[in-house]
Amino acid sequence: MPITANDVNRTSWLEVEENSDFPIQNIPFGVFITSDDVITIGTRIGSYAIDLSALQQLGYFDGIELTEGVFLQDTLNDFIAAGKKTWRLVRNRLADIFDANNPHLRDNASHREAVVFHLADVQVQIPVEVGDFTDFYSSREHATNVGKMFRDPNNALLPNWLHIPVGYHGRSSTVVPSGVPVHRPYGQTLPKGETQPVFGPSKRVDFELETAFITTCANSMGERLSVEEAEDHIFGMVLLNDWSARDIQTWEYVPLGPFLAKNFGSSISPWIVTLDALEPFRTASPVQDDPKPLPYLQQEGNHAFDIDLEVGILPEYGEEKIVSKSNFKHLYWTMSQQLAHHTVNGCKINTGDLMGSGTISGPTADSYGSMLELTWGGQNPLTLHDGSSRTFIEDNDTVIMRGFCKNENVRIGFGEVRSKLLPAIPFE
Amino acid sequence: MPITANDVNRTSWLEVEENSDFPIQNIPFGVFITSDDVITIGTRIGSYAIDLSALQQLGYFDGIELTEGVFLQDTLNDFIAAGKKTWRLVRNRLADIFDANNPHLRDNASHREAVVFHLADVQVQIPVEVGDFTDFYSSREHATNVGKMFRDPNNALLPNWLHIPVGYHGRSSTVVPSGVPVHRPYGQTLPKGETQPVFGPSKRVDFELETAFITTCANSMGERLSVEEAEDHIFGMVLLNDWSARDIQTWEYVPLGPFLAKNFGSSISPWIVTLDALEPFRTASPVQDDPKPLPYLQQEGNHAFDIDLEVGILPEYGEEKIVSKSNFKHLYWTMSQQLAHHTVNGCKINTGDLMGSGTISGPTADSYGSMLELTWGGQNPLTLHDGSSRTFIEDNDTVIMRGFCKNENVRIGFGEVRSKLLPAIPFE
Repeated sequence: MPITANDVNRTSWLEVEENSDFPIQNIPFGVFITSDDVITIGTRIGSYAIDLSALQQLGYFDGIELTEGVFLQDTLNDFIAAGKKTWRLVRNRLADIFDANNPHLRDNASHREAVVFHLADVQVQIPVEVGDFTDFYSSREHATNVGKMFRDPNNALLPNWLHIPVGYHGRSSTVVPSGVPVHRPYGQTLPKGETQPVFGPSKRVDFELETAFITTCANSMGERLSVEEAEDHIFGMVLLNDWSARDIQTWEYVPLGPFLAKNFGSSISPWIVTLDALEPFRTASPVQDDPKPLPYLQQEGNHAFDIDLEVGILPEYGEEKIVSKSNFKHLYWTMSQQLAHHTVNGCKINTGDLMGSGTISGPTADSYGSMLELTWGGQNPLTLHDGSSRTFIEDNDTVIMRGFCKNENVRIGFGEVRSKLLPAIPFE
Repeated sequence: MPITANDVNRTSWLEVEENSDFPIQNIPFGVFITSDDVITIGTRIGSYAIDLSALQQLGYFDGIELTEGVFLQDTLNDFIAAGKKTWRLVRNRLADIFDANNPHLRDNASHREAVVFHLADVQVQIPVEVGDFTDFYSSREHATNVGKMFRDPNNALLPNWLHIPVGYHGRSSTVVPSGVPVHRPYGQTLPKGETQPVFGPSKRVDFELETAFITTCANSMGERLSVEEAEDHIFGMVLLNDWSARDIQTWEYVPLGPFLAKNFGSSISPWIVTLDALEPFRTASPVQDDPKPLPYLQQEGNHAFDIDLEVGILPEYGEEKIVSKSNFKHLYWTMSQQLAHHTVNGCKINTGDLMGSGTISGPTADSYGSMLELTWGGQNPLTLHDGSSRTFIEDNDTVIMRGFCKNENVRIGFGEVRSKLLPAIPFE
């Protein structure tokens, strides 16, 4: 089935600002509350939110096999469960409905009123009910930087790292969409040189620049998904700020991994960009030949995407400073390798599972994906535009992550994930 | 509100076998499919499964504020969300309905037919939709044994262990009820003395003897639950066999913790025993004074329960051998400390979250809660009744865990969690 929605010659009868992340070639999926207070599944073109349940009721999806009410939902889970063929049919149809040359909805004022909302008039929600949240650790540069800082600078990568797309389980209950603030966490930390821990607000709250993918049901418990099959079970991608409290992490993480250092909040961008939309930006990953992965992780072809990423810090009173520019293609392990590895033991993948990439650091010091690396453990503070300095994130700072792909024909983006760090809630 | 369901002088008009885990003083909660093919919330008395949705429809819960249809559900989540007062009212009422002296249901044959089923005629299901699954590591003996084997015998406990109820996130999607078999997982392992990993079925599949508790919604994101409040948000407890592949674990677990070594299956007993039912067995935990925990973890009074635990291995053709006898009261950290710690950073706890205790090893070698400890890393095989030996679990072995409390008046038990290890599914 061709991906006609990717036609770069198409324009929309809806106005799309230049350099928008959401031209008619994107057609991401999300959930929003309309100005009529209805919660619905939608897409976004330019600065318009489009109500897919209204479109379905008005017959615009006729001919596509869809459950009644599949879009009149507060999560995308049921639609995602319908599978890749359905996602593609719906996305292609949406491109057709909003094509500048298609008068059907364009010239029907009452239908338009029911379907098209200004983004400013709606409330965008978290797009999925997250089942399980897994976070990988797939940037070689990030793992190397962390290894240099905390372990052995001469053997920074642990022995398993080049063989395994290392990952661990995160917490679903605190995955929140862009716009929801996060409180600085309290916790135990061990002051340098001490043997007894102290308790108080974390002093080293950090962001982690990540992307994440959302799955559809992939297997039964006990079954595996091959690396070739994996991409068919990925609905799309979002940006992820995996908030981290470095001082809590250092004290708690042995031997079972990070826990309270991570689970106080994980922020995602609200519009899920499909792999179909990203297809024109498919590109190579780093070569894996020293060592070659085990056969179940070997794959042919290009499985990364050329997605430019950036992080800005916006102080409470002041101007945003871009502190990192990275790219998704730097990741050593691909999403299909991550997903195949995740199921190789028979672990069940459900619709709505969220899988983070791990911090995406590039090769240069200005492309590192966390304050930990950018300031090298707090040794080299960054200076913001107002002259204030940052080793980690301060109260009332807003962290903004953006991501987009661009070539000579089209720009496909994620918008942003923006979240403010509120002060710790005092302990009574 | 008194817990009248705990009255030890009460007997039921339903026959209860001697030494049953489910006398009328237990009244656990679960989910089952009736012989009429209806899925419902139920309780168990002796060898009878009792349909609570039928009881509600017939008016037996009149006077208790309950949502219509709250029991006609395939999970307990909505009922758990109703809160402790409601659980207690319903449990007290159930004791009253089945009291030997109460003729109301006892003498109404058509009602009895709609409500009471022989356990053999129903299919017991998983009782909750698990939101997030957290596994703690709260047995000092277990952590010490593992530290002796894998780290430093003279400094077996890591520095954080006596300060933090160490925990990590597990995988919800593979939590299954008693009776569901689990396949031996494939995975990467590093053979002794080698530098390159190999791929194949795990050779060291192990059980972990644990209990777990199920929560009700406890807080908003950012808020904390004090150690004093914590128990009010615990609905009840189950037995948990936290299946583990030790060879996969050893290779994958640095630095982010166990992942595929654990998430191929976690088996729970299907009847949730309430904290109210366990109240007569409340007992002291190990003293925590060297060091004292930080103030947010300090608590007064008794917060453990005297629950005898045992593990049996039943080979495919042969007789069950009890390989471990332990007790819940050995745990160093209490459930209320675990839950308070979990929220101290503002992590949100939802209804239906599952929190495992970690392997419950006692002080003696026959009370260790895993094959890893019982055979000391495979060095000292156990002998089964048929003369065969075990270092770890073999294909087609069934692992059975049981737990019960007993005093001179009453026995309150969990039944069992029984799961068979099937051979690995061959890799194509």
